[in-house]
Amino acid sequence: MPGRSYTLTVRYAETDAQGVAHHANYLTWFEEGRSEFLRQAGMNYSDIERAGFFVVVAHAEIAYRAPAFYEDRVTVTTVLDKARSRILKFSYRAVNQYGVVLAEGCTVHVVIGPDRRPTSLPPEWLQRLASLAEG
Amino acid sequence: MPGRSYTLTVRYAETDAQGVAHHANYLTWFEEGRSEFLRQAGMNYSDIERAGFFVVVAHAEIAYRAPAFYEDRVTVTTVLDKARSRILKFSYRAVNQYGVVLAEGCTVHVVIGPDRRPTSLPPEWLQRLASLAEG
Amino acid sequence: MPGRSYTLTVRYAETDAQGVAHHANYLTWFEEGRSEFLRQAGMNYSDIERAGFFVVVAHAEIAYRAPAFYEDRVTVTTVLDKARSRILKFSYRAVNQYGVVLAEGCTVHVVIGPDRRPTSLPPEWLQRLASLAEG
Amino acid sequence: MPGRSYTLTVRYAETDAQGVAHHANYLTWFEEGRSEFLRQAGMNYSDIERAGFFVVVAHAEIAYRAPAFYEDRVTVTTVLDKARSRILKFSYRAVNQYGVVLAEGCTVHVVIGPDRRPTSLPPEWLQRLASLAEG
Repeated sequence: MPGRSYTLTVRYAETDAQGVAHHANYLTWFEEGRSEFLRQAGMNYSDIERAGFFVVVAHAEIAYRAPAFYEDRVTVTTVLDKARSRILKFSYRAVNQYGVVLAEGCTVHVVIGPDRRPTSLPPEWLQRLASLAEG
Repeated sequence: MPGRSYTLTVRYAETDAQGVAHHANYLTWFEEGRSEFLRQAGMNYSDIERAGFFVVVAHAEIAYRAPAFYEDRVTVTTVLDKARSRILKFSYRAVNQYGVVLAEGCTVHVVIGPDRRPTSLPPEWLQRLASLAEG
Repeated sequence: MPGRSYTLTVRYAETDAQGVAHHANYLTWFEEGRSEFLRQAGMNYSDIERAGFFVVVAHAEIAYRAPAFYEDRVTVTTVLDKARSRILKFSYRAVNQYGVVLAEGCTVHVVIGPDRRPTSLPPEWLQRLASLAEG
Repeated sequence: MPGRSYTLTVRYAETDAQGVAHHANYLTWFEEGRSEFLRQAGMNYSDIERAGFFVVVAHAEIAYRAPAFYEDRVTVTTVLDKARSRILKFSYRAVNQYGVVLAEGCTVHVVIGPDRRPTSLPPEWLQRLASLAEG
């Protein structure tokens, strides 16, 4: 899978009584995958928000393949599948230090303004995002 | 939607810089919906784990409809869609104090033993769960 | 201990690989104790923020006495120790369903305005808070 | 301050409606500071737990100096203040990318066995820890 990657170490606070990383953390890890994707492309999500836009999650889907344990090194690879004027779609794969796929997923996002209503991203950002998209 | 419900108050720690409940919390709220579903049916998930079984999440899907804010009262209604020997499927709806649907979702679970390998739940639990399932 | 109480059920996501509620959760539980304290006194913290004030944590201290487990019922009792124009001090005790003290702690808060600089709460709120304080 | 350091990037999920990193996260960041401290000293906390010992938090104290924002780079420096047979004391300082001190704190830990009763660490680990301690 092409895309941009970052690696995290599983925190103790992220484990649960099953002794594995709690399944909700993957959404947070994927979110940081998106942040990192944008950062590596020279676009900080902080800047997008400072400009008055919010990219909110409309849909999320995760398939859990194998558990992650405390101190595991997890590499999240993020791909931008689609970038349209009001909709973005990302997909993700999380792999541990042994190359085992832990989870795969995707998220769909809509762009809203400070009034929390759907809007479009400014054309220059959209163009830049579109150039990074796979599809 | 039939099913079993519980109500939570959105915590400050659950909000994010967008001023709304962070989207990963819904997986945690749905999980407590499952716990509450089992509790109301006289089956504590703690007991299942004490007996050496873990019910792990294999798949999760969430559609986000509207944001939840700090101090909102969110009612999560949980339905057991399916209960087979090695697979459970739940679905959820989260509604705020004004009746607005915030999110809908579903999770698929597999049963594993202490060796983390797939197994079946004991027949008496399975029967009890099957009697609670919609389908 | 006098004060105002609320009860929570320990969530699965709050447990860690030691099989107990992770120690960082107590700060979140105490925070909800403060929210509930204000709510029971007819002052929503949401209203304070909407009026442009933030009450931020300047100091926190926690003594952990006993572990909390998944599905435990934890009652947090909150006392307002001190309410001065720019400083608030709360203390907390968390007790489980068997009456066992799990943790005790305190937090000191300062009031800041939208510019993130220290300020005073409006006199009417301060008076109301002072009437609720122990000391 | 001498000690061992690691750097994290503030996650979006860690922010709250005040637009800053929620104060409970510092306990988690400090915990990872401890993990990293041990890791850099060639002792994985995972190994300690696998050997049947748990190092649990008995006391925590945090002074918050300045807020951390999304995408800030936070460096946590951890010092082992004390290592006795049944007690460990760590202190921490968190500093952002501009050198601003965000928070300082300390935690006291006791060692327990699988029966959750206080015990001592094995002599070879204790000796190793004592050699890393400041005091």
